[in-house]
Amino acid sequence: MTHEIVVIPGDGIGQEVTPAAVRVLEFLDLAFEFHEADAGDHVLAETGEALPEETYELAASTDATLFGAAGETAADVILPLRTAVDSFVNVRPATAYPGVDALRPETDLVFLRENTEGVYSGHEDRLSDDLSTLTRVVTSSASERLAEFACEFVEDGGYDGFHVAHKANVMRETDGRFRDSVVSVAEERGVETEEVLMDAFATHVCLDPTQFDVVVCPNLAGDVLSDLAAGLVGGLGMLPSANIGPDRGLFEPVHGSAPDIAGEGVANPAATIVSAAMMLEYLGHDDEGQRIRDAVEAVLEDGPRTPDLGGDASTEDVTDAVIERL
Amino acid sequence: MTHEIVVIPGDGIGQEVTPAAVRVLEFLDLAFEFHEADAGDHVLAETGEALPEETYELAASTDATLFGAAGETAADVILPLRTAVDSFVNVRPATAYPGVDALRPETDLVFLRENTEGVYSGHEDRLSDDLSTLTRVVTSSASERLAEFACEFVEDGGYDGFHVAHKANVMRETDGRFRDSVVSVAEERGVETEEVLMDAFATHVCLDPTQFDVVVCPNLAGDVLSDLAAGLVGGLGMLPSANIGPDRGLFEPVHGSAPDIAGEGVANPAATIVSAAMMLEYLGHDDEGQRIRDAVEAVLEDGPRTPDLGGDASTEDVTDAVIERL
Ligand SMILES: CC(C)[C@H](C(=O)O)[C@@H](O)C(=O)O
Ligand SMILES: CC(C)[C@H](C(=O)O)[C@@H](O)C(=O)O
Repeated sequence: MTHEIVVIPGDGIGQEVTPAAVRVLEFLDLAFEFHEADAGDHVLAETGEALPEETYELAASTDATLFGAAGETAADVILPLRTAVDSFVNVRPATAYPGVDALRPETDLVFLRENTEGVYSGHEDRLSDDLSTLTRVVTSSASERLAEFACEFVEDGGYDGFHVAHKANVMRETDGRFRDSVVSVAEERGVETEEVLMDAFATHVCLDPTQFDVVVCPNLAGDVLSDLAAGLVGGLGMLPSANIGPDRGLFEPVHGSAPDIAGEGVANPAATIVSAAMMLEYLGHDDEGQRIRDAVEAVLEDGPRTPDLGGDASTEDVTDAVIERL
Repeated sequence: MTHEIVVIPGDGIGQEVTPAAVRVLEFLDLAFEFHEADAGDHVLAETGEALPEETYELAASTDATLFGAAGETAADVILPLRTAVDSFVNVRPATAYPGVDALRPETDLVFLRENTEGVYSGHEDRLSDDLSTLTRVVTSSASERLAEFACEFVEDGGYDGFHVAHKANVMRETDGRFRDSVVSVAEERGVETEEVLMDAFATHVCLDPTQFDVVVCPNLAGDVLSDLAAGLVGGLGMLPSANIGPDRGLFEPVHGSAPDIAGEGVANPAATIVSAAMMLEYLGHDDEGQRIRDAVEAVLEDGPRTPDLGGDASTEDVTDAVIERL
């Protein structure tokens, strides 16, 4: 069965790391049909719209989308794309690779981030010259859908259970609902959970990341805490992610368009290549996904490195090395 | 002039570290009159209320309050107390002390946290069996008041300027208002500012904390990012804080009541003693504040240590050592 894959390089280093990941995918010679689509700052400049309807429709109708990065328009591109795939969870692994200089080399976490609500609701109002409000939205249904996914993730991955990060001591009604919904689904399924306040998590993950494996969180908590974990494993250049919906997925590195190094051909493609591996696994190609992961790990350990990891290799050198090890 | 000081030990290790700080203050023999007041889990158990009206009124009418910690009732105690002093900013320094095992020993930051609004508005609604909402509130007036304070803080402290952390790419109206208000006050006063997204801050502060000095943030961002910084300097046991209002202040360690070690007499009193130093500085006793800071620093460098810092000294040993060095 042929899979339709939308590829959206976007802006900045997205134009470099996304083709790198596609080269790796093409090398595997699977039954994929790639459709390139456009989005980002440069599209806004040309057409007045950061995310063309056509790109949205492609993402909303194909099996999987591989996205690079967008610049200033990131929110205008990535948030609607997450909606396009009806993504209810953003899976964000943060693993320190052997040989990569990491603040906490023992870090090995997966964040399961709620991907549709919280302060990302889009409901904001300017009530007066002095006052603006935002409606933070939490539903049991979204929290339960996330929890079902988390339980399966934990069972499939052989984890003992998961942590639920929240701030229900302050956001009693909304994060209280989030926590209660998640915990009750887990209880029904016999999956163990432990609660942690999101602020306390920020301290404790620095002091000892091995206390945590899988961390289920509301939208903004997942955003910030996974970026924190990126700081522990050596930077955003290392974090892949998968936005999973009921029928399709959107796969993207956690990093942005890095305008400071864009165009120099030295961006680290690891996060995007591993995002492509997550895409393969999502599409049922587990073995190929694992092959990519192993190859990236081997290259990170002793292969050529891009400047963010202290080397002087190019994106292409690293991609060649990954392909060689496949 | 005699200053009236309210002392609220609270729960758990609050009962140990607060008296320790009071001993240090008493040793300095300043014109202080201490009033002990009660709050916390044990008060809830006894009286049905975590924060007695009397304690609230004391905090709302005296020059300064020194607070220890509260347990499960922390939010019911500390949030109203911040309101009692009309505290519009929570000053949270995060400094790694020489000799203390810190993940990033070069960390030297001060968070200026908005202390009245954001998701701490208290406006939450249960709209249906499935849906709850919280109204996140941002006003220009609160943001400007914070910015005025930040500008003075930067000028007095000899800093180059400050960072403004926010998530205005998603919370465009509310954090947009926050950012614009803060930046425009700073521009008027000729203070330099640099923006940083709160998620990006979480990565970058791990990779290189020396990029930042003073960080101005909305309420929840300040909560989480300062706790993250605690993880970089060796734990919550090290972070003091000052809640500043127009006429009075509330001074408290950032850590909680630590039920796991409460009653053993081994809690690290450093954060509370330095919070007391911040109180002295607030009350105009700069020299004495500095003497306390120097004494704590000296003890942390080569004096007795509590178990959280790898030693086996008691709270009392450490407090004795601080007093000896005064
Ligand atoms: C660009 C932004 C809207 C986005 C988010 O906040 O989700 C980004 O930070 C991320 O984490 O993917
Ligand atoms: C106890 C809680 C309400 C409080 C907060 O969120 O402000 C605490 O985390 C803090 O940072 O002082």
